[in-house]
Amino acid sequence: MESLTEKFQREDVLNIGGISFRSRLWVGTGKYKSFEETREAIEASGADVVTVAVRRVNILRKDEPNLLDFLPPDKYKILPNTAGCYTVEDALRYARLARASGISDMVKLEVIGDPRTLFPDVVGLVEAARILVKEGFVVFPYTSDDPIIAKRLEDAGCPAVMPLAAPIGSGLGIRNPYNIRIIQETVGVPVIVDAGVGTASDAAIAMEMGCAGVLMNTAIAEAKDPVRMAHAMRLGVEAGRAAFLAGRMPRKLYANASSPLEGMLASPVSGHPS
Amino acid sequence: MESLTEKFQREDVLNIGGISFRSRLWVGTGKYKSFEETREAIEASGADVVTVAVRRVNILRKDEPNLLDFLPPDKYKILPNTAGCYTVEDALRYARLARASGISDMVKLEVIGDPRTLFPDVVGLVEAARILVKEGFVVFPYTSDDPIIAKRLEDAGCPAVMPLAAPIGSGLGIRNPYNIRIIQETVGVPVIVDAGVGTASDAAIAMEMGCAGVLMNTAIAEAKDPVRMAHAMRLGVEAGRAAFLAGRMPRKLYANASSPLEGMLASPVSGHPS
Amino acid sequence: MESLTEKFQREDVLNIGGISFRSRLWVGTGKYKSFEETREAIEASGADVVTVAVRRVNILRKDEPNLLDFLPPDKYKILPNTAGCYTVEDALRYARLARASGISDMVKLEVIGDPRTLFPDVVGLVEAARILVKEGFVVFPYTSDDPIIAKRLEDAGCPAVMPLAAPIGSGLGIRNPYNIRIIQETVGVPVIVDAGVGTASDAAIAMEMGCAGVLMNTAIAEAKDPVRMAHAMRLGVEAGRAAFLAGRMPRKLYANASSPLEGMLASPVSGHPS
Amino acid sequence: MESLTEKFQREDVLNIGGISFRSRLWVGTGKYKSFEETREAIEASGADVVTVAVRRVNILRKDEPNLLDFLPPDKYKILPNTAGCYTVEDALRYARLARASGISDMVKLEVIGDPRTLFPDVVGLVEAARILVKEGFVVFPYTSDDPIIAKRLEDAGCPAVMPLAAPIGSGLGIRNPYNIRIIQETVGVPVIVDAGVGTASDAAIAMEMGCAGVLMNTAIAEAKDPVRMAHAMRLGVEAGRAAFLAGRMPRKLYANASSPLEGMLASPVSGHPS
Repeated sequence: MESLTEKFQREDVLNIGGISFRSRLWVGTGKYKSFEETREAIEASGADVVTVAVRRVNILRKDEPNLLDFLPPDKYKILPNTAGCYTVEDALRYARLARASGISDMVKLEVIGDPRTLFPDVVGLVEAARILVKEGFVVFPYTSDDPIIAKRLEDAGCPAVMPLAAPIGSGLGIRNPYNIRIIQETVGVPVIVDAGVGTASDAAIAMEMGCAGVLMNTAIAEAKDPVRMAHAMRLGVEAGRAAFLAGRMPRKLYANASSPLEGMLASPVSGHPS
Repeated sequence: MESLTEKFQREDVLNIGGISFRSRLWVGTGKYKSFEETREAIEASGADVVTVAVRRVNILRKDEPNLLDFLPPDKYKILPNTAGCYTVEDALRYARLARASGISDMVKLEVIGDPRTLFPDVVGLVEAARILVKEGFVVFPYTSDDPIIAKRLEDAGCPAVMPLAAPIGSGLGIRNPYNIRIIQETVGVPVIVDAGVGTASDAAIAMEMGCAGVLMNTAIAEAKDPVRMAHAMRLGVEAGRAAFLAGRMPRKLYANASSPLEGMLASPVSGHPS
Repeated sequence: MESLTEKFQREDVLNIGGISFRSRLWVGTGKYKSFEETREAIEASGADVVTVAVRRVNILRKDEPNLLDFLPPDKYKILPNTAGCYTVEDALRYARLARASGISDMVKLEVIGDPRTLFPDVVGLVEAARILVKEGFVVFPYTSDDPIIAKRLEDAGCPAVMPLAAPIGSGLGIRNPYNIRIIQETVGVPVIVDAGVGTASDAAIAMEMGCAGVLMNTAIAEAKDPVRMAHAMRLGVEAGRAAFLAGRMPRKLYANASSPLEGMLASPVSGHPS
Repeated sequence: MESLTEKFQREDVLNIGGISFRSRLWVGTGKYKSFEETREAIEASGADVVTVAVRRVNILRKDEPNLLDFLPPDKYKILPNTAGCYTVEDALRYARLARASGISDMVKLEVIGDPRTLFPDVVGLVEAARILVKEGFVVFPYTSDDPIIAKRLEDAGCPAVMPLAAPIGSGLGIRNPYNIRIIQETVGVPVIVDAGVGTASDAAIAMEMGCAGVLMNTAIAEAKDPVRMAHAMRLGVEAGRAAFLAGRMPRKLYANASSPLEGMLASPVSGHPS
């Protein structure tokens, strides 16, 4: 018999730019101890989108052990990313290389501004996004939580925007839910939180805010038990999505308080947008 | 084949005072539209402990439709509670009534201090707990987040303490994780967060802090779709528990920051206690 | 010419139980390096209420250097406190001793529940407060942020209640503004935040919430420069009070947002209660 | 005799690009009911920098009542701003107009990205800043809290950066202290928080984080009593600065906790950076 989880997921499929996604949790492949651990954790996460750094993976060399051998193409959507690219030119080059190698037309576009914090260079990002969209790429841009930049990326033709929750590898959770909320109001495309999630409740909060999905890597790979954390993240994303769709109770100072606390201040954190 | 959820749950059973609990989510029965909705939501929650207000349910009258008819005793552990009792005497009376009627030796002890906020009267609570423990009850006390009172309740013989996250029916989530953390340091018995949870991430956070379980009612019953929210809460509790056991990554200002943010300030919110 | 600070303070005098207070910042005397440093810091704080631990100060011995020699009685109101008392009996004894020695009829009543956390034993506190009020003391009780206990203390005859912002010596600021807000709604007497303030903005927030005053010790004494921090705290309390009386702007998601964020969730932190 | 406030201010003068500033509170001039109220509030704020929207003020027309008549040039530093400019060209035009009219070589540079949220267009901002610095302007850029952009602005020759705490007119306080902290680590020039402050404690927190100053307008002008709020803000800024210089106590879970809470997570909010 179909479980509630299966039923709810069947009725609520993420669709971006004509592509259907089985899961709202997208995962990266860095920082694992082995390809085997990577594979097990990704399987436990339930993700179908798996992002891979073109620069770091020898995707073109077929003679050596390769991460992609561990990720069967019938099971996962490989999303090449341009991590490690600090210029527009570099990002363009690696995006084109990934497509040329037959991996995907999709690209998770990163133009990094600073090797220390790994914040995006949003000026370069918008420029690169415009070029790649014109070349026919499906561009998923890793961006800051700046609503103006998010709008520019939508205008450039990106089918989704991927603002950071917090710096890459920080594990801090959504540091500024207000900006994420304003981005949701500002753009018409899905918002996928990228980077900064640290634990399962962080992922749940992103989904409760109405985000379309969450992308993460370090939070799983650097947990003490990555496979169990991958499982936790899967449940966290599903929990948050279900809570969002269920429509949470209003906040009050206490049950018999005359006025609800469901002011706008509450909403950005984990409220129901409707 | 056994799923990861089933495997992890089999290996991690909550045990309090010699009683095994199938789920770490405990649920109430108030505020639903019908007995049928109550039954469906509770089923979706996966709870085996279901708490019932002795005062409000005609548990002794077998001639009328009765909530307990909808909750098969082979499927659920009925936990009578003394909600609505404002004096020690009243609380004792209803606890004894519930046991006399054969429902359970367990009681969720509430001595309410104020009909407006429904905060517990901790002075009366400690007194009533001492008496009921001596009479052989298994007492689960609904208390404030005061560590001194929690310790008194443990000393009185309660096999767990149930501090509020926030006022009953408020949906505010854990308002003072610092006190919950201090309670965890102070008592040796399991800590079950009771009251104040509003959405799935709130439940996940409680579990990520290392709490043994979460009890809730309004957050499910007053969601727009109680059955879906019950499902969300089940996933949220499982997600938080799995994340706790997995051991989260340390917090940092950014990935390459020289020092981790895993100070104590971080920990109370959703850190790993070890 | 009168400064704005002087003008505003002249028009807004704190009055509790018929006693007028020049300042809303009350200070302790522990943890300083010397009596001289104590004196300088207290002077910089602008406090007129200075609390002194009867147990720790040899207030009855006139032959040794004494803290009270550094605090001229024409300049300060000495408020004896029962810090270090773990039983009702002990607290009563030291309160009576202080009065008998002629220091004051006022007492900051502490019945400590645990030497580790220094949380109050609220059961003993209520009992001791009742006894001392009947004996004619003006009792300022150091209590938890439990609204039910605050009400009991008011009912016992305390002219003010002094809930903790956070544990003594923690410097965490107001950990649960919701409870402080509920206490303000629940009692008719002034609420003075006691313990847990760490820096000037913490004090300002307490005042912006509409508290009548703030009592602190460690935040000043354990700053790197206690005298300058005492000055900062004076300004912080005055700033918060002035902001409270000025009536802050409503919160919004952004300036042109259709609805204000001034829901109740906002209010407990630093909103205007009116 | 010199007061402590006077003494501390004399010893701690803000200097940016060779210009000395008497106060760390900078104020705007919009949204007041009258020029008279503007003048009174600004006087109560103690500010010497007063920013004026070139676009909205008829600064060139000497035949009508003019805001600048109410702000004597010997008393205040007038800082023209380009509020209301949505393109680089517009911003350049109004900056040049202000200088040509003899008001100042300084300009608070705003290139607004969206009339609804008033977030800056950081792409245009960096471009305009480069041009104006080359033309000899002293450029104070109103920017987002993006550290990469802040660095670009410093590299362009701006003598300070002015990241927003929250959207203009929101009154939300510092929404992302982590980013402000990273900006402080990333740039060598002073950081002045611009926009989003709502009440006195918000200003104090900015200063406690080590910011060089705070610029605000709505929080004063839209308070119920703008003059009193201006006074509150003055005290709040002074309190926060004094607390920063005094060096706050470490945070702990409670006084006797073995390890301090002064992790990095604490620091961004109101910690001492050293």
